[in-house]
Amino acid sequence: MSKDVDSSLPWLEAITWDEKGLLNTIAQDAETGDILMVAWMNKESLLLSLEKGEAIYWSRSRNRLWHKGEESGNTQQIVDIRLDCDGDVLLLKVRQTGGIACHTGRKSCFYLGLDQQTGHWQAIDPVLKDPKELYEK
Amino acid sequence: MSKDVDSSLPWLEAITWDEKGLLNTIAQDAETGDILMVAWMNKESLLLSLEKGEAIYWSRSRNRLWHKGEESGNTQQIVDIRLDCDGDVLLLKVRQTGGIACHTGRKSCFYLGLDQQTGHWQAIDPVLKDPKELYEK
Repeated sequence: MSKDVDSSLPWLEAITWDEKGLLNTIAQDAETGDILMVAWMNKESLLLSLEKGEAIYWSRSRNRLWHKGEESGNTQQIVDIRLDCDGDVLLLKVRQTGGIACHTGRKSCFYLGLDQQTGHWQAIDPVLKDPKELYEK
Repeated sequence: MSKDVDSSLPWLEAITWDEKGLLNTIAQDAETGDILMVAWMNKESLLLSLEKGEAIYWSRSRNRLWHKGEESGNTQQIVDIRLDCDGDVLLLKVRQTGGIACHTGRKSCFYLGLDQQTGHWQAIDPVLKDPKELYEK
């Protein structure tokens, strides 16, 4: 069993960062409960997120801070923030601007369902907006 | 931007495992939408989960397969399975036996809310069952 959060510590010190200094972070739609996406935060991005009230992640592929919606305008306003029992996963309940969290133009990144008949992942949720419209401005 | 899932590949090959061969996995209550916990799967645990229809994770702390509920009886029946756009996070929608996913006896592991006045994490959700009753049988 993992070590539980030591809630006598100030909140930032109570977090368990991974070996790369990152924190597994889930964004959940505060109204519908849909899980929108999973991304990573480092200490700087977490502090900035709290300061601005919007989700700012650490992009592992681009190796830089990533203010969600910086290109598309689809920012995430933080409504509630939760930590799990062993302090290594963060949950943000957010209001998703534009109703689109995924770069494919869908509400959620979890749009692939397993089709056990074909043995392939199938896109289940609809594209709400052409990604070209989201990113090529 | 990460590489999107290649859905022409069979489902198992389309998954992007991390450098340790693990897949970030979220369990969400299929009825309430509550996020119950986050854990990891390796290929073996994912195949076993699908075979049994119950969540079987890979415990990084114990370095072994972990059939969720094996001690407490609080198993998770898989209702739906989703993958995210870049194929490196799995979402299980589950029926949580006993209504308790957390080893602290709470419904969800995400019971810690940030108290900005005190600067500490505070347990917000109630303990539904004494953990001693869950594990000392």
